[in-house]
Amino acid sequence: MATIAILGAGIMATALTFPLTENGHKVNLVGTHLDRDIIESIQTTGIHPDLDLKVNDKVVAYQLEDAEVAFEGADVAMSGVNSFGVHWAGEQLAKLVKPGMKVLIITKGMEADDEGNLYLLPEVMQRYFDEDLKNSVTWSAIVGPSIAGEVAVHHDTCVIFAGEDQQSLDYLADLFRTDYYHVWTSTDFRGCEIGAATKNIYAFAAGLGQGLLRKEDKQDDRYVRHNYNAAVFGQGQTELRQFMSLLGGKPETADGLAGVGDMYVTSAGGRNVRAGTYVGEGIPFSEVRDSLMKGVTLEGVNAIRVIGGALEPLTKRGVIEPEDFPLCRYLYQIIEHDAPLDMPFESFFGTMK
Amino acid sequence: MATIAILGAGIMATALTFPLTENGHKVNLVGTHLDRDIIESIQTTGIHPDLDLKVNDKVVAYQLEDAEVAFEGADVAMSGVNSFGVHWAGEQLAKLVKPGMKVLIITKGMEADDEGNLYLLPEVMQRYFDEDLKNSVTWSAIVGPSIAGEVAVHHDTCVIFAGEDQQSLDYLADLFRTDYYHVWTSTDFRGCEIGAATKNIYAFAAGLGQGLLRKEDKQDDRYVRHNYNAAVFGQGQTELRQFMSLLGGKPETADGLAGVGDMYVTSAGGRNVRAGTYVGEGIPFSEVRDSLMKGVTLEGVNAIRVIGGALEPLTKRGVIEPEDFPLCRYLYQIIEHDAPLDMPFESFFGTMK
Repeated sequence: MATIAILGAGIMATALTFPLTENGHKVNLVGTHLDRDIIESIQTTGIHPDLDLKVNDKVVAYQLEDAEVAFEGADVAMSGVNSFGVHWAGEQLAKLVKPGMKVLIITKGMEADDEGNLYLLPEVMQRYFDEDLKNSVTWSAIVGPSIAGEVAVHHDTCVIFAGEDQQSLDYLADLFRTDYYHVWTSTDFRGCEIGAATKNIYAFAAGLGQGLLRKEDKQDDRYVRHNYNAAVFGQGQTELRQFMSLLGGKPETADGLAGVGDMYVTSAGGRNVRAGTYVGEGIPFSEVRDSLMKGVTLEGVNAIRVIGGALEPLTKRGVIEPEDFPLCRYLYQIIEHDAPLDMPFESFFGTMK
Repeated sequence: MATIAILGAGIMATALTFPLTENGHKVNLVGTHLDRDIIESIQTTGIHPDLDLKVNDKVVAYQLEDAEVAFEGADVAMSGVNSFGVHWAGEQLAKLVKPGMKVLIITKGMEADDEGNLYLLPEVMQRYFDEDLKNSVTWSAIVGPSIAGEVAVHHDTCVIFAGEDQQSLDYLADLFRTDYYHVWTSTDFRGCEIGAATKNIYAFAAGLGQGLLRKEDKQDDRYVRHNYNAAVFGQGQTELRQFMSLLGGKPETADGLAGVGDMYVTSAGGRNVRAGTYVGEGIPFSEVRDSLMKGVTLEGVNAIRVIGGALEPLTKRGVIEPEDFPLCRYLYQIIEHDAPLDMPFESFFGTMK
């Protein structure tokens, strides 16, 4: 039996307590300052209000002030915060994590500097650790197509545990594996993280065709816009694979769960797709952001802002060509400059001959 | 202005008459013996009954007995029949096609011999041509994510014209290109045809998760089975790419329109997905075939039968390993041996470690 301490009590972190506790492990779930109500709810009723499910008995919920107790003696230290909390989480974990622990991250995304250099979030988090501590633990992450609630209700889910240390990956995978939670491992840590971060870009794009149909009032017509969506998906997949090469992942990691599979599930629905749908309907993105979806966490939009924003400096430096990543560049124009919907199909799939 | 003669008046062939005639070209649309009512309808009312749309004036519809007149002097000879009619179409076209014509094929699929050798349908069709005639024309095909009705109603559609002769491809692409019908070209003829044929296998698989949800009476639950579908899609994409290598296509053709994009649109709905849904609900495939969907053309199921059936002899001959193509092999068990739904996730994505 192992003890897993998790910082962040969002739906994904909490969903992962199901396979863990069903395998007999103990989970200490620590809320961030934004999770106070969630933790109180779990402490009093056992119910996670956003998941709308009762967590298993072996989950012990802690408010943030009790984080030290929760992490004391843990075998695994997990970061369950989303990409917006990565700096805060890095700071906290640098205090909570102890040598020998296995760090497991579900936070996904990238950050960029002014020159367009892109950094994966585990790298960002590691900056808060002093060198000795950083090297005295192992770093791993969970990627792949995984809607949190589906894990919690025991629907089959296939994921990859990625990291540099195969032994840690095997240990961690073993803690989580059940008959519905299927775990593969990969030592292409960078590639897996690149897929996880860039697929969010294209979730926003997946909503545009549906919005366009609504704008035309054709959403109930016999013929909808599957061809449009498929072309956008195909270009998204092509760019995801190009990001893999550009940022140092293995090309084959763009296949299967960490790339295409994850992009598929992210495109099937959710907040980023909804934001794209509004834009497809003809609403400027700034209005979606400031009014229709005010306060809603949009990791896909953030990915477009960060990664899309890095493309211009990378082009200026000659690292990429102006015709590379046309879809990501166009999505950046939508979210930063309120560009109207006019999909640049002719720029897709390499030069059109 | 060019003249395009098309054999077969199904929905895809007829949909393609829209961009052609809007570009000022003349289309002679010849029905097969199965299309008599369609041709009569177009001749009398202009309406294609299955598309439920009026075709443009520049389309002239011919019954099969007038095929020779229709093909006389045509610049382009198209095969618009489906994969079940490939031998018949080969025989007919061998008589109708004249030297110098550009042959353009929308029939997709494969055939296998007893040793598991797989042949693309353009190859099968070419067998009916004598060597001189075969070499006096050029051979091209249309592939990519394209639902026929969407083309007909002018929804954006991105496709690839594939063939060995770039000049013919450029000529053909130019005949079809409009502001909604976007055409790329590729000289990886084999790769494009492999993608077009194998993607149908995985359309059937795309229905299984939805069927399973129905069986569990959970289709209206908050948490459905996107994770399941994404894992199946990811494995399908992985196998499509492997088929590309196995059968002599370029690996990169598995990206974008000819591979992932086409698989995406085929998985979004249609008859093959529906057949998979029934099996997911727990109905043996033989009952789906002989009763629920009796007489319905299922090209995906046929692809599983042909390509899936070739995997065993290919394995025996040592061409592939027993652990290759686990999803395709399992789908073959479903459609040939009424295997119940029990997705072999653990066999996916290479060996599970």
